[in-house]
Amino acid sequence: MAEIASIPETHRDLIEARGVAVLSTVGSDGYPQSTALWYMVDGDVVRTSLHRTRQKFFNMVQHPKATLFVLDPANPYRTLEIRADVTFDDDDDQSFLVRLLAHYGQTLETFPAPADNRVVLTLTPHHVVTYGDAPD
Amino acid sequence: MAEIASIPETHRDLIEARGVAVLSTVGSDGYPQSTALWYMVDGDVVRTSLHRTRQKFFNMVQHPKATLFVLDPANPYRTLEIRADVTFDDDDDQSFLVRLLAHYGQTLETFPAPADNRVVLTLTPHHVVTYGDAPD
Repeated sequence: MAEIASIPETHRDLIEARGVAVLSTVGSDGYPQSTALWYMVDGDVVRTSLHRTRQKFFNMVQHPKATLFVLDPANPYRTLEIRADVTFDDDDDQSFLVRLLAHYGQTLETFPAPADNRVVLTLTPHHVVTYGDAPD
Repeated sequence: MAEIASIPETHRDLIEARGVAVLSTVGSDGYPQSTALWYMVDGDVVRTSLHRTRQKFFNMVQHPKATLFVLDPANPYRTLEIRADVTFDDDDDQSFLVRLLAHYGQTLETFPAPADNRVVLTLTPHHVVTYGDAPD
């Protein structure tokens, strides 16, 4: 595995902001697919939880490269782009999902989507691109 | 050319909002690339202006499929995704750039980026996916 790209301190706030990020994958027809999702930093990687029936899951099984993009809600010209290698792990005991929900102040009881049949998506940064400066 | 996918009335406000959209392309290394940009609807298609030296321009010359994604700033669970076929036209007289800038209340004089050596990017919708309801 190549060296993991690091997220600069200038944009660290965006990756810890508990907002939504845009995840882009590549479909078998060659079109990128983009969706909004929750995410969390976990050491040097970014993780999220995915249902096994979702199109983006199938896309990344076939094409394990994806990009997470975060816009600063206060300044749309300040952005963080993480081009990443994708790996999956089971989450049959929902322990990761519970961690992710807790990061957003939620629990399994308040989560509005199906909590079973999920995997942990790990995005290992391959290349990181930022625009804009550190926040004031 | 296949039939052009239409943008539903429920999300028409997002494509006319004069905000930033996220454009995702596919690099020659297989990683998606995402950037924030201005855009405008022009009949059935979406257009923007690109400098010929940008990575996303090279990506789309090689792989002419790209996806525009718009988040509702007032509700991040309301989104519009346009998977599109890409074509380019010259804009040597800057006439399209002037139109795009005017859409955002700007002129060539106030535009902070290079105004020469640009092309018109046309995104012809192939498939449109929406999340969330129409605004109240």
